[in-house]
Amino acid sequence: MKRREFFKQASVATIGAAAAATTLATPAIAQGNITWRMVTTWPKNFPGLGVGAQNLADRITKASGGRLTVQVFAAGEMVPGLQALDAVIDGSAEMSHGTPYYWQNKSQGLSFFTGVPYGMTSRELTAWVRYLGGQELWDKIYDQFGLQGFLSGDTGTQAGGWFRNELTGLSDIQGLRFRTPGLGGQVWAKLGASVTNLAAGEIFAALQSGTLDAAEFVGPYNDLALGFYQIAKNYYFPSFVEPGLATEIVVDKAKYAELPEDLQEIVKVCAQASYDDVASDMYANDPRALNALVTEHGVNVRQFPEEILEAGATASMELIAEIREGGDALTKEVAESFVSAFNLLRQRTEGTDMPFLAARQKYIKYD
Amino acid sequence: MKRREFFKQASVATIGAAAAATTLATPAIAQGNITWRMVTTWPKNFPGLGVGAQNLADRITKASGGRLTVQVFAAGEMVPGLQALDAVIDGSAEMSHGTPYYWQNKSQGLSFFTGVPYGMTSRELTAWVRYLGGQELWDKIYDQFGLQGFLSGDTGTQAGGWFRNELTGLSDIQGLRFRTPGLGGQVWAKLGASVTNLAAGEIFAALQSGTLDAAEFVGPYNDLALGFYQIAKNYYFPSFVEPGLATEIVVDKAKYAELPEDLQEIVKVCAQASYDDVASDMYANDPRALNALVTEHGVNVRQFPEEILEAGATASMELIAEIREGGDALTKEVAESFVSAFNLLRQRTEGTDMPFLAARQKYIKYD
Repeated sequence: MKRREFFKQASVATIGAAAAATTLATPAIAQGNITWRMVTTWPKNFPGLGVGAQNLADRITKASGGRLTVQVFAAGEMVPGLQALDAVIDGSAEMSHGTPYYWQNKSQGLSFFTGVPYGMTSRELTAWVRYLGGQELWDKIYDQFGLQGFLSGDTGTQAGGWFRNELTGLSDIQGLRFRTPGLGGQVWAKLGASVTNLAAGEIFAALQSGTLDAAEFVGPYNDLALGFYQIAKNYYFPSFVEPGLATEIVVDKAKYAELPEDLQEIVKVCAQASYDDVASDMYANDPRALNALVTEHGVNVRQFPEEILEAGATASMELIAEIREGGDALTKEVAESFVSAFNLLRQRTEGTDMPFLAARQKYIKYD
Repeated sequence: MKRREFFKQASVATIGAAAAATTLATPAIAQGNITWRMVTTWPKNFPGLGVGAQNLADRITKASGGRLTVQVFAAGEMVPGLQALDAVIDGSAEMSHGTPYYWQNKSQGLSFFTGVPYGMTSRELTAWVRYLGGQELWDKIYDQFGLQGFLSGDTGTQAGGWFRNELTGLSDIQGLRFRTPGLGGQVWAKLGASVTNLAAGEIFAALQSGTLDAAEFVGPYNDLALGFYQIAKNYYFPSFVEPGLATEIVVDKAKYAELPEDLQEIVKVCAQASYDDVASDMYANDPRALNALVTEHGVNVRQFPEEILEAGATASMELIAEIREGGDALTKEVAESFVSAFNLLRQRTEGTDMPFLAARQKYIKYD
């Protein structure tokens, strides 16, 4: 089957045999089986995130007994990755899988739901979104476009990037040609780096040819596959500009509202389960990949010098201050809610989690 | 309706009107609507955990369009909390909601799926259970009883407990009559405390009468409601013996296998979503409750002295060593898998998360 025909077929709601039973009380079956197209921003089988999109689609299909079948299109299969949201807006797809900060051109406030430099960890983010008003503000943004977003995964705190040379301090990053996108890129630019963005598939060649001095992508699980270790041997931790990167599904709000209530709940609950699943996958597989990078590929694992961590924090606070002052009304509202939740949640992180982890690191050792 | 009549009615699978449509392909509807009883180990409306059990039940009911309706029984409504698992084994209920370490008498290995002293955090636990072989071992344990378990929530790292007097070191806990259950209690006993366990509802009176010198329960969100602050003003953090407490649902495996595949998936996916939901709820509401305890009730928030943290670590490692040496074959297998995953996962926590959090704590400040 040709791709165009496939799309056409997938867009038509197939009336199943069960629809013949007109006495049925269950609306979904009365309406026949529905097929939704999920366009993703990830390459096919991209570890963690792309696999997570496929798993999420499969679970919706399975939990609905096939009444809502979700077809997944990797980046480029239907539209380029960064047009996934527009594909939902223009009706070519019913659902996208990506991360909110890809759509900053639509609203800067969306960045906060992905995570911001020196901002919330994965668990802090879900606490804000689910219990401290975050989802409601996110809904206000997407509502303007006839969309509805749900969190669907998280990378956890990312790696800081691949550098050819060891970093001794801020002087080493002046003019450094560094691939790092989004708000994180703006922070690195404030520190003096010459920041560029390149798609995943282009980074390796740019490093190899010398167009780039350094690059960051996600973390060991994803970076291992892209081969950066062949060029740049110094792998720095942590990414203070990406303490978490949450993914989303975004659905066409009108089509979502037309679903029977059970299918609406299935979409919602599968997205939330996927959040846990992807975060767990990344957490389990990052250290395995990092061990392979060190033992098989001679990578040097390093921590950023204190001077860079400190300057990065100052630059991040500046950036957030600029957004709080200069953003549109809704972005400002999001930023205020984020900062307020951040100030609350860090009390738990710093008063409970961190002292525990520090003691555990210091005293616990198992062979 | 009287409670007994209610139970009787709830145990009968109600054949819905839809069952009349005999041409149906969907097995669940062909079988009629099913009602399952969930017995929980929590008091009614217990913050976080009890509320989480109710939410999980409601989501299964909603996502299944009522084809699988879950009725919740708080501790004591059908059976006492600590008989919840036996109620599933003997068929009085189809599902329980509790935490694995309550059933240590059935297998000591179950403790590892709740969390152990100085062990895994919430995210490390899900990484182990979902991606590093934990679930498979857990299944081997419950299989012996015809059961199937799924994670359903987490408190995150708990509070260390309520103490009348300030603690200066190990000498202050010799003979201290301290309410703290499970493996954590064994660690405190090794440190010299006189450890007792009491049900939630009995702790306050025992503190008030002087039968107890100190008590730990969960964390601010739960502890606030129980009023311990009226007696003991020193609230210590963190609980190094409970770095996380995961909850579970346990289902009757044979009845689960009889469900159509879509309902099986709904149970599973709702449990996983609930894990994220409860952990987020606790994370959002613990610091709010702690602020209330400090500002409204004059509680002193304190960190354990280093001497206690260190001795607690030594005692915890001893305890795990005893289990690795002396447990039954399956418990040993669980312990080895846990330790191996722990050694892997802490690399990510210590190499990425902790350096990020330390820098954030040091440099970031928002008004």
